Amino acid sequence: MATLLAGFKILADSLEREIRQGAYKVGEKLPSLREITRERAYGKNTVVAAFELLVARGLVEPRRGAGFYVKDIAAPADMDTPEHGLGRAKDIVWLIREQLKDDPQAIRAADGMPPAEWLAGARLDRVHHKVARGGLGALFSYGNRYGYLPLRQQLVRKLGGLGIETDPRQILLTHGANQAMDLVLRYMIPPGATVLVDDPGYYFLFGKLKVHGAEIAGIPRLADGPDLEVLEQVLIRKRPRLFFVQSIGHNPTGSDISADKARRLLALAEKYNLLLVEMDPLADLKPHEQTRLSALDQLQRTIYIGTFSKSLSAALRVGFIACSSDMASELADLKSIVHVSSSEYAERTVDTILRERTYAKHISALKSHVAQATAQSRRLLADAGAHFFCDPQESLYMWVRFDGLDDSLALSEYLTAEQITVAPGRIFSVNPGGVSPWMRLNTGIVVHEKFQAMLKRRPLW
Amino acid sequence: MATLLAGFKILADSLEREIRQGAYKVGEKLPSLREITRERAYGKNTVVAAFELLVARGLVEPRRGAGFYVKDIAAPADMDTPEHGLGRAKDIVWLIREQLKDDPQAIRAADGMPPAEWLAGARLDRVHHKVARGGLGALFSYGNRYGYLPLRQQLVRKLGGLGIETDPRQILLTHGANQAMDLVLRYMIPPGATVLVDDPGYYFLFGKLKVHGAEIAGIPRLADGPDLEVLEQVLIRKRPRLFFVQSIGHNPTGSDISADKARRLLALAEKYNLLLVEMDPLADLKPHEQTRLSALDQLQRTIYIGTFSKSLSAALRVGFIACSSDMASELADLKSIVHVSSSEYAERTVDTILRERTYAKHISALKSHVAQATAQSRRLLADAGAHFFCDPQESLYMWVRFDGLDDSLALSEYLTAEQITVAPGRIFSVNPGGVSPWMRLNTGIVVHEKFQAMLKRRPLW
Repeated sequence: MATLLAGFKILADSLEREIRQGAYKVGEKLPSLREITRERAYGKNTVVAAFELLVARGLVEPRRGAGFYVKDIAAPADMDTPEHGLGRAKDIVWLIREQLKDDPQAIRAADGMPPAEWLAGARLDRVHHKVARGGLGALFSYGNRYGYLPLRQQLVRKLGGLGIETDPRQILLTHGANQAMDLVLRYMIPPGATVLVDDPGYYFLFGKLKVHGAEIAGIPRLADGPDLEVLEQVLIRKRPRLFFVQSIGHNPTGSDISADKARRLLALAEKYNLLLVEMDPLADLKPHEQTRLSALDQLQRTIYIGTFSKSLSAALRVGFIACSSDMASELADLKSIVHVSSSEYAERTVDTILRERTYAKHISALKSHVAQATAQSRRLLADAGAHFFCDPQESLYMWVRFDGLDDSLALSEYLTAEQITVAPGRIFSVNPGGVSPWMRLNTGIVVHEKFQAMLKRRPLW
Repeated sequence: MATLLAGFKILADSLEREIRQGAYKVGEKLPSLREITRERAYGKNTVVAAFELLVARGLVEPRRGAGFYVKDIAAPADMDTPEHGLGRAKDIVWLIREQLKDDPQAIRAADGMPPAEWLAGARLDRVHHKVARGGLGALFSYGNRYGYLPLRQQLVRKLGGLGIETDPRQILLTHGANQAMDLVLRYMIPPGATVLVDDPGYYFLFGKLKVHGAEIAGIPRLADGPDLEVLEQVLIRKRPRLFFVQSIGHNPTGSDISADKARRLLALAEKYNLLLVEMDPLADLKPHEQTRLSALDQLQRTIYIGTFSKSLSAALRVGFIACSSDMASELADLKSIVHVSSSEYAERTVDTILRERTYAKHISALKSHVAQATAQSRRLLADAGAHFFCDPQESLYMWVRFDGLDDSLALSEYLTAEQITVAPGRIFSVNPGGVSPWMRLNTGIVVHEKFQAMLKRRPLW
C-alpha cells in the first residue's frame, strides 16, 4: 500500500520539478505510463492521476495514443504565474474535474447530490406549459435585476418557515449557490484579504477564494459547529471580514451546529465585526426546527445562501442570497455587471414547480428518503467497522474512517477500477496536499447493493 | 435646455463632494427635490436622476415619502473604497439599472434586444416535452464541465457555416456571452493590466473590466472597424494582451468591419502579440458572408464569443466561447470553480430548438425582419433630419445624431415622460462622463408608431 498512500501528488510534484529544471524540454515526450510504473515503483492508477494533474497544471498535454508531451510553460496564458487566478487554484481544478466526470455506470458515493430518483418527484418534466403560460414576452428578455419577483416572494415565505424574516428586496436570485458565493466574495473582499472557512469544508468555495486571490484561513469543524477557540485566536490575529460557514448538514461532515454554539458564534461575530455567510444548501432535506445563524440573527451580521440544486435540480442553476436590502441592491448591481442577469426561464420553472400541489409531497418524500438512508447507512457502515465523526439523524453526508486505513485516498484510488467513487477527506481540507483517514460518503449511495458488497469485503481495512 | 445639458452627473458630483466634506452628516436628510430644483436651477428630471445616481453610489438612501438620507459612508461594505470592485464601476451600475427596468408600456428604442415578436417564431414555449425526453437523469445533475455535448456539436456546424473550423473540445458553453467575457477576463488579465475595447462599445464589458480592476483603453471605432493608427500607438505604448472587439453589427454603431481592415488588424495582433476577443452576438441576424476575424484567423489569435440571447432568448442565458482546445479546457476549469457548471437544462432547451425543423425558418424570418426594419428606420430617421454614422443594410442598431442636439442625453431625459427610451451616446463611451450628440436606436423599435410620431415632432432638434 505504500505506493498508493504516497499518492499521485508527490509524483506530479517531482515531475513538475524535473520539467521546470529542464529535465524534459518543451515538446518532449514524458516517459510512458509503463516506464514510470516500473522505474519509480508507483501503481498504474497513481501515475495516471499524476499525469492528469500535470495536464490540469498546464505543464503537459496528452496526444492521442502517443503519451504526454511537455508544453511551452512560458506561454502567454501560463497558469503558473503567481498573479494568475486559475494557477493559484490548480489542485482544486483537478478535484473538480474528477467530480464533473459523468459515468452513468459509476456508484458515486463521492457525490454531493441526492440520487436522481429522489428528485424525480418534483416533476421537472411536466411543468413547461405552465412556465410558458406565465407570459411569453418575458421568456425573451433579461428580466429583473434581482431575479423573478414571484419566486422571490415564494422565498420570503420559505425563509419565514425557517424563522428568517425578509422582504423580496432582500432576496437576490443567482446562477446557483456558487454564483452567490462568488458575488459575495467579489463584493466584500479585496485580493489579499483573509477569509475564514470551515475546515474541512466546501472545495468549490476554496477554489473561488484562490482564484480571487484571498488568503484562506480554515476554522476546524467540530461535531457541534466551528471550533470557537481557534476562531477567536484567528479573529484577534487577522481581523477578517467574512466567515463562510455551513451550520446545518455541514459538507463534508454532516454535522449540525448546536443552539448554544450558534449563539456564541454570533456573539464573537458581533465582538470582532465579522460577517457570517451561512451556506444552507440542504435546507429542504433537513428538519425545519434546526438552529440557523440567520434565524437567530435576522440577517444583521449574517448573509444567507440557499439553492434548489439539492431538492429540485442542479441543472436549473437557481440559487439565492438573502441579506440586508442595501447589500442585496449592490449585489444585484454586481450580478448585472458580471452576467447581466440570472435566467428568468429557469427561475420561472422553479417558481412553477413550487406552486404545484405535488411539491410539498415531494419535499416530504425527500426528507424521509434522507432519514431512512441515514439510518440504514449508519448500520451498514457500523457493521463494516466505521468510526463516525458525528451522528445526525438526517444527513446526505456521512464522515467516516476505518481502522487501518490511514489515507482514504488509497480506498478512493483502489475503487476506481470498480467504478465506485468515494470522496477522500483530503480534498475537503484547506490544505489539500495533506493525508486524511476520513472520507465523505453519500447516504443515498451507501445503500446501493454494489456499495454494500464492497463494505462487506473491507478491501483495504 | 442648459439645465438638462449640464446633466445629472454634475449635480450628483457636487452633492457627493458636499457629503464627503461633511456638509451633510450621516442620517441627515438631503434638501428636497423642490428645494434643489429652486436653489440650484436644475430641472426636476435632472435632480431625480442625480438622487438615483447617489443611491447607486451608496451615498444616500431613499425613505418612502420622506426624501433622501445620507448613509454611513464609512460602513464596512463601502462601495467607494478604491479596492472595491463595484465602487470602481459605480457609474456603469447606474446605467445598467436603467436598462434592466422593466416597463411593458415603454417604447424601448434604447433596448439592445430584438422585439419579442421577432423571437416568438423560435417556439420556446413548445419544446419542453422534447427536452425532458432526452433523458431525465441529467435534468438533475451538474453536467459536463464544457457544457452539453450535443449542443457543442451543433455549434461546430454553426461555426463551420461562418467559416470557423472547430471541434467540440474547442467550445465551452457559458451563462450567456457576458459570463464568457468575464471568464476570458479573469483567466487572462491580472488586475491593473491594460485591456483594449471598442470606443464607443459595450458598457457591460466596461463594467466587468472595472470590477476586475483592469485599465481600459478605448480604440476609436470607425465605420469600417477599429482605428488602426490609434491602435498601433496604444500597442507600442502599453503592450496590452487583449482587445475585445465586435466586428459585425457593432454595438452601438451597427458598423461592420471591412475585409481589408480585418486583415490589417490581424497583422497588427501578430506583430504585437495581441489576442483578439471577437464578440459576435448578432451572428444570427446578419448575413453569413460578412468578414469575421475568427474565420480569417481560425482561432489562432482570436477567441470567439457567441450567444443565443439575440436570436432565441436572453432569458435562457446560453452563450459560448470558441478558442484553442487548451484554452477551452482551462476556461472550463475556471467556469467550474466559479459556478460549478452552466445550466444543462437551458442548454438542452437550446439544443432541442435548434433541431426543430422550424428553426431555420425562424432564423430566416428574423433576418428579414432586421433587413426590413433597417431600411424603414433609415427612411424615417432621414426624414427627421438624422445624420448616420454608417449605412449597414441589416442592423439591429443605428447610430445617429441630429443637428442642434449636442447632448443626446437631453433627448433621453426629455422622452422619459413619454415612456420612450433612447440610448444616449455617452453611455457607450469609455469615459461616460462626457457629452455626445450620438444615440443608439433599435431599428425594431424605431418603426413603432409612437416613435415615428415623436420623430415627426422633432421635440428637441
